[in-house]
Amino acid sequence: MNCVSLITDFGTRDEYTGVMKGVILTINPMARIVDITHGISPQDILAAAYTIEAAWRYFPKGTIHMVVVDPGVGTRRAVIAAEKSGHRFLAPDNGVLSLLIKDGLDRAVRVENPAYFLNPVSQTFHGRDIFAPAAGHLSLGLPLESLGPDLNPKDMARLAVQDDPFITPDGILTGQVISVDRFGNLLTNISYEKLQDIWPGRDEKFLEIRVNTWIIQGLSSSYAEAASENLLAIIGSRGYLEIAVNRGNAQKMLKTGKGGEVKIGLAGKLNELEA
Amino acid sequence: MNCVSLITDFGTRDEYTGVMKGVILTINPMARIVDITHGISPQDILAAAYTIEAAWRYFPKGTIHMVVVDPGVGTRRAVIAAEKSGHRFLAPDNGVLSLLIKDGLDRAVRVENPAYFLNPVSQTFHGRDIFAPAAGHLSLGLPLESLGPDLNPKDMARLAVQDDPFITPDGILTGQVISVDRFGNLLTNISYEKLQDIWPGRDEKFLEIRVNTWIIQGLSSSYAEAASENLLAIIGSRGYLEIAVNRGNAQKMLKTGKGGEVKIGLAGKLNELEA
Amino acid sequence: MNCVSLITDFGTRDEYTGVMKGVILTINPMARIVDITHGISPQDILAAAYTIEAAWRYFPKGTIHMVVVDPGVGTRRAVIAAEKSGHRFLAPDNGVLSLLIKDGLDRAVRVENPAYFLNPVSQTFHGRDIFAPAAGHLSLGLPLESLGPDLNPKDMARLAVQDDPFITPDGILTGQVISVDRFGNLLTNISYEKLQDIWPGRDEKFLEIRVNTWIIQGLSSSYAEAASENLLAIIGSRGYLEIAVNRGNAQKMLKTGKGGEVKIGLAGKLNELEA
Repeated sequence: MNCVSLITDFGTRDEYTGVMKGVILTINPMARIVDITHGISPQDILAAAYTIEAAWRYFPKGTIHMVVVDPGVGTRRAVIAAEKSGHRFLAPDNGVLSLLIKDGLDRAVRVENPAYFLNPVSQTFHGRDIFAPAAGHLSLGLPLESLGPDLNPKDMARLAVQDDPFITPDGILTGQVISVDRFGNLLTNISYEKLQDIWPGRDEKFLEIRVNTWIIQGLSSSYAEAASENLLAIIGSRGYLEIAVNRGNAQKMLKTGKGGEVKIGLAGKLNELEA
Repeated sequence: MNCVSLITDFGTRDEYTGVMKGVILTINPMARIVDITHGISPQDILAAAYTIEAAWRYFPKGTIHMVVVDPGVGTRRAVIAAEKSGHRFLAPDNGVLSLLIKDGLDRAVRVENPAYFLNPVSQTFHGRDIFAPAAGHLSLGLPLESLGPDLNPKDMARLAVQDDPFITPDGILTGQVISVDRFGNLLTNISYEKLQDIWPGRDEKFLEIRVNTWIIQGLSSSYAEAASENLLAIIGSRGYLEIAVNRGNAQKMLKTGKGGEVKIGLAGKLNELEA
Repeated sequence: MNCVSLITDFGTRDEYTGVMKGVILTINPMARIVDITHGISPQDILAAAYTIEAAWRYFPKGTIHMVVVDPGVGTRRAVIAAEKSGHRFLAPDNGVLSLLIKDGLDRAVRVENPAYFLNPVSQTFHGRDIFAPAAGHLSLGLPLESLGPDLNPKDMARLAVQDDPFITPDGILTGQVISVDRFGNLLTNISYEKLQDIWPGRDEKFLEIRVNTWIIQGLSSSYAEAASENLLAIIGSRGYLEIAVNRGNAQKMLKTGKGGEVKIGLAGKLNELEA
């Protein structure tokens, strides 16, 4: 297996991603390189963390996932190679693997062995000089430990979790919009599991979801269950709550976006709160 | 042959297209996946219909073409697998294959066999859960009929054709701009064949093409045949009439775009009409 | 080796790049096609020239690099196939290979043999009809000379060089911004070698770099060496001077962009000039 996936904030206008692919293919001409996205907003580590978490399971076992969102390039931050369920990950030690660490990594090493880097290593483009050659060698079967010494996942950087959804004593769950997809769907950080915490044993139609002044009653099971141009809430493809408009754009309709607050309660609870 | 092409309205900012590729490669690690575009405007079925029609012939025989522009995801709309001239197509039954049906499909089936889907199937992302795994299996040689029961192409959804170009009794051909490409070229729905209906046996220089208040005399045989920054009409690479500006942008110059009207007549006819 | 790289100004919204890939794979199903970028601004030959120069070395020997930025498509401008250090290049004869010619091409031919083109050849899309099939055949091992007669690189079109950086008698080096990358970094045409011409044997901290009214003291060795949101100058991954803002956007901060002037002198020199 020789699949390499890529998540970066490089965009596709410059030569940066193509150059990384050239480096990988120079080392392993049989590598199969798949773009997950290069459209992470510059230096948005949290967005990249959610993206790799949403994507990695769908790739073949043995895939090497490169996550290069790396504002600290050229500083002393470590580069990490990690393993989980037969997949391997290459990323800067800046929190971009936070969600994978939470679930448990099988092992990790610090990538320090220059035998597997380009020479010289620049101070501005480790994607080309360190990540890509390391990925090329891993895809040829190089064992993780050849890249450098073991690292305890507990010592890896993690994103602060003040943004996790929380439930207040009145039973209201508050989360936030993590990203907005191309359709204008608002992707939240509220997982299906979290949602069940506030309605164990109840029907989903008794939930109310509020974004700004809009209130949505219950969850839909498809976008088209709502009338055209109507607002709905649904468990999206990542397994998280999503706010959408059937054949429309929720971001435009609700005039909110990344960071926007989403409150959820059992029917009637949100209004009580208001009063 | 194991080529899979992709047309979607997913954009490239989110993980959606990467995830579909991961699913395909998990089933067939040798698949060669080619993006045709992920830049179809959200839910623009007509644009996708023109795109697949413009592209499929240039791929190797045996290619599986996935067209996932699917506002009805999660509803009871069928998923279709079709065959034409040795190529295979996977698409929702929403009209996106209209232009291929018009020319004649060799056969079609309803994709219903869950043995070839991911499990579970979500209600929001059939690209990942149905289309991609079906494509992966087809690329391994799975016969079409394994996916589900035969479907008569006559029973498939087609886009309304009120937008087809038409000729009025005065000999004026009226069509419209179907899309605007990255260069600002206006791509119309007027095929070269249609154009010949109004000037059989005549010289192309006697044609007049009107967009808004601009009139173009005759067809050019290359962009550079017009002076720099000058307007021209040409048969584009899709075989349809295109309005362009040499080293410029026709959309900006003509202040028109998708849906804009284009009128064509023999020299003098358009002015008569005006008078 | 069967790697094909692509640089175009086609964007990714239209089917154009996918169609070229289909043509290549029809001829060589084993070709490995890598996008360097399709985001060159329409008809920006200079940007493409810098991009191919920045990228080609990082690909495997034997790679065929297609550079299709071709405002003269359909005119009598030649199509060129060239060779340099074991890499091959296909491009219109419009100056897009200027920087490679400067360094010395090993050989070049005019691509004229219709046996290796699609038939018919359109007047609007040589990327599909000439470049892609020629690349497919080269990737199968076709020798360069089969495509057409020898061409002396001295007879190839080159971009005017009035934009090269220059040093005035007062020791001030003036260059310009060639492009702005996705991070807002200003990429200049001032190479590290050129920079050394004005400070032989001196310390880099004595250099001053001016863009608009901003003055930067010395070169940084990493983005993060500057404080957050602070301006810096650095030798970027292309080996050229780059103006950046640590965790910020230099283009927005300096309100400049492509074509903007950059002046460099030893400490004190720029102010003298002002006075």
